[in-house]
Amino acid sequence: MSAGPEIERLIQLLSKLPGLGPRSARRASLSLLQKREQLMIPLADALAEAAEKISACSTCGNLDVTDPCAVCRDHRRDDSVICVVETVGDLWALERASAFRGRYHVLGGVLSALDGVGPEDLNVAGLIERAGREDVKEIILALNATVDGQTTAHFLADKLAEASVDITSLARGVPVGGELDYLDDGTLTAAFRSRRPA
Amino acid sequence: MSAGPEIERLIQLLSKLPGLGPRSARRASLSLLQKREQLMIPLADALAEAAEKISACSTCGNLDVTDPCAVCRDHRRDDSVICVVETVGDLWALERASAFRGRYHVLGGVLSALDGVGPEDLNVAGLIERAGREDVKEIILALNATVDGQTTAHFLADKLAEASVDITSLARGVPVGGELDYLDDGTLTAAFRSRRPA
Repeated sequence: MSAGPEIERLIQLLSKLPGLGPRSARRASLSLLQKREQLMIPLADALAEAAEKISACSTCGNLDVTDPCAVCRDHRRDDSVICVVETVGDLWALERASAFRGRYHVLGGVLSALDGVGPEDLNVAGLIERAGREDVKEIILALNATVDGQTTAHFLADKLAEASVDITSLARGVPVGGELDYLDDGTLTAAFRSRRPA
Repeated sequence: MSAGPEIERLIQLLSKLPGLGPRSARRASLSLLQKREQLMIPLADALAEAAEKISACSTCGNLDVTDPCAVCRDHRRDDSVICVVETVGDLWALERASAFRGRYHVLGGVLSALDGVGPEDLNVAGLIERAGREDVKEIILALNATVDGQTTAHFLADKLAEASVDITSLARGVPVGGELDYLDDGTLTAAFRSRRPA
């Protein structure tokens, strides 16, 4: 490399993005330098603007330009149901699927002994406070079906036991388009156990 | 998605980077928003700085903060050899390998009837001018071993025939670590034809 510390720094920062390694970060920075007007300057501006304007919603933890966020401000949404998700990415995925019309609560991760994540590192206090509000009837624990996700769900169910709300979790079963032959035993067992009239 | 046009725009710009699709661009922008101080603001600054400072060297076409670039300014390099490469990425690859201590010339692409790239779209005139200088003894055509790369090499060899320089190209053969079983016929034939005393 002979292009000086500016490009090295750009490559180094780009390589920290998920999905980009050192090699693809080099390709990306080269592509940026060659598309200065169409891509590099707009991207620099978009990053600076987003960094300045976007913050976490103090109610649910979603990222938005306003606080409370657009989801929390939307009067058409159902105040009686709160869907608990691990990350903002999960919230976005549910919104893309238009799967849910209530409110959200972003935990900011899951409990993990291995990674040293305890209850105090997650937004648990905010959830308990919200669950105690009069109009909340149901808390959906939409955590990942991983060991850590399920541990966290159990922990939250315990913590929320005192609030007078229904606590539910997402159904387990065969995914849409899924072939039985390729599914793991746990999913098949769960799908059998929760079978329903055809 | 519910996070407003700022994030959508960021995702859309990131998805134009080579190696990032819409899905990974979404993950990347989420990761950026969550690492605002460590990653997002530094990246915005690095992009803006690079866009402002870095330009193509008017001699060789390399990208650098100075013009002429660091390679062209380096007095320890050999003025008598010019290595012609397709892109700045190729130049960086050769520099990383410390394969060459002469000067470079970046064509900016290869001739391609399919993509409508003609000689006037490449930096051919600059090369012919440089090849005519007194101290230049050899031009190495380090173009990719693709059909377009080799077409371009032939075209350049023709154009440079009048200049009193040696015109060479990179050796063809078995790559380091390459297993014969996995090599294509063309490479094996070339390696046999250029065999040398062991």
